[in-house]
Amino acid sequence: MSPVRQVDVDALLEDVVGDHPGRRARAVGRLISLVDDEHPALREVMAALVPVTARRAQGATVVGLTGPPGVGKSTTTAALIAAFREKGSTVGVLAVDPSSPFSGGALLGDRIRMEDHATDPGVFIRSMASRGHLGGLSAATPQALRVLDAAGFDVVLIETVGVGQSEVEVAGLADTTTVLLAPGMGDGIQAAKAGILEIGDVFVVNKADRDGAQATARDLRHMITLGERRQAGDWRPPVVLASAHSGKGVDEFVEALAKHDGWLRSTGQLEVRRKRRASAEIEALALNRLKARLEARRGPGEDDLEGLAGRVVAGGLDPYGAADRLVDSLLEA
Amino acid sequence: MSPVRQVDVDALLEDVVGDHPGRRARAVGRLISLVDDEHPALREVMAALVPVTARRAQGATVVGLTGPPGVGKSTTTAALIAAFREKGSTVGVLAVDPSSPFSGGALLGDRIRMEDHATDPGVFIRSMASRGHLGGLSAATPQALRVLDAAGFDVVLIETVGVGQSEVEVAGLADTTTVLLAPGMGDGIQAAKAGILEIGDVFVVNKADRDGAQATARDLRHMITLGERRQAGDWRPPVVLASAHSGKGVDEFVEALAKHDGWLRSTGQLEVRRKRRASAEIEALALNRLKARLEARRGPGEDDLEGLAGRVVAGGLDPYGAADRLVDSLLEA
Repeated sequence: MSPVRQVDVDALLEDVVGDHPGRRARAVGRLISLVDDEHPALREVMAALVPVTARRAQGATVVGLTGPPGVGKSTTTAALIAAFREKGSTVGVLAVDPSSPFSGGALLGDRIRMEDHATDPGVFIRSMASRGHLGGLSAATPQALRVLDAAGFDVVLIETVGVGQSEVEVAGLADTTTVLLAPGMGDGIQAAKAGILEIGDVFVVNKADRDGAQATARDLRHMITLGERRQAGDWRPPVVLASAHSGKGVDEFVEALAKHDGWLRSTGQLEVRRKRRASAEIEALALNRLKARLEARRGPGEDDLEGLAGRVVAGGLDPYGAADRLVDSLLEA
Repeated sequence: MSPVRQVDVDALLEDVVGDHPGRRARAVGRLISLVDDEHPALREVMAALVPVTARRAQGATVVGLTGPPGVGKSTTTAALIAAFREKGSTVGVLAVDPSSPFSGGALLGDRIRMEDHATDPGVFIRSMASRGHLGGLSAATPQALRVLDAAGFDVVLIETVGVGQSEVEVAGLADTTTVLLAPGMGDGIQAAKAGILEIGDVFVVNKADRDGAQATARDLRHMITLGERRQAGDWRPPVVLASAHSGKGVDEFVEALAKHDGWLRSTGQLEVRRKRRASAEIEALALNRLKARLEARRGPGEDDLEGLAGRVVAGGLDPYGAADRLVDSLLEA
């Protein structure tokens, strides 16, 4: 955690809603740093953002992108940025994938591709620290999202790796969640296992020029059909074949996103999802507070965390019994 | 989640402490399934395991293995199993790495290597579901560990991928945490970023026959020295060069683990770490209970999760304010 800095919240908020692209980008960056650092001014900032966001006629469209490492998420993100920019939309990117060049973890050295967008004021790219947050990504990401929303970005892309539990959850916070797969990675089983099949609104089989792409797409469609317990009029996730590197299929991908967005708005599902996101955010913040209370609690009768842990290690108490005592002592205080 | 089954807890516990290897393995597998399924009988099982574990003169040595995908964690795990078996130790393996062949996600098709140990009653290999747990891996893994401990395994290996936050935390629950890296993956920066530098007690540069292995080891040693704020007598993490595939360096690795184990015991750090593990386990279970309470809470005055989420989406309340209300309503009830 960085040392606490004095923050001129009013000036930052003014820049975020202002017309100067450079100042706006800098203010957005600083506000997201406050989120990353869990800065004490964060409460004040978030409260101040509420009326700003409420004034906007339409919030940012939030697109999640997830998939296993090596599937081409960052190339796809770059292709999506270009496609949205061409349509005149501004794009914010939150990268919470530790293997992504966006988040500074460039395993494959293809960070260069991003530099196409580095000087475009209509694009803001930011990596989120994947560790160190009390409440994990599920607390920090929606707050960073609020900042980008208040700054007026039309589209926000959240790129996460489909490995950890919290990363998958973060992808599920989007309005539209895209799952990327590639041929020859045992995707079908993999997807089902990691639970990403359930969260996908749009599936992309990337690297579609490789052998087995059609088979992967067919397997996916089959699994989507099998998993269906839907009513008429419900959304059936499309499977798009693409090659983000060459640009093939990117238009179809963008079209699928637009179609899902239309479905969300026409059915009222957009409101449902945004409530779900707010609910997850509030819950994560509340659990942070409760966690701090549990850890700060002292006694009585050794019913604090340290005393209980000692008794569990010594073999005098089982962890469930210990957890019950801890919760009871908190609620009955 | 599986449907709730009737469980004969007494029979399972009898088999877990009994002398029949086949029955023991089956009972261990079923008990860990109860953990995976969050079965209602789990409380009873965990309470019953307390005296069993307390009777053992010495608990299982718990070794965590983590590192980025593709670094050779499963090959290394296989090599470690073989080395421990040669010394006469029994070995339990918990794989919580979705890209690991142990946990069924065989990306590289090297699951075959595991079959060397498939018929050995002194080896028990089990994958943990990486999703679906209320409290995440941090709640489920220590409980699976308790089962293996009660069954008398000398060594338990926990294999996790060093990507997600929870996976890194799980690795930190071990007595000795091993971080695997390989040359040419930008390891240094990567390790620091993911926070795995802080949690490593032993570092292994795998694939040591490749170019750059020496440089990676040197970088690591440098970073370890830079990070040191230790007193004399404290542990300095060794960096072992190995090639798990050919077996090179595996003996040195096992020796480093034994040395760290000796250090843990002689300094009292073993007790400290086990208390920390119990503390994390109790906290995760307590937070599960509190989470369930938050979600089940209804009213009054729309101060329940759903009502508050609606107000945040409508722009009438910020998430921090909402979290405060939720916590207050729970604690003041």
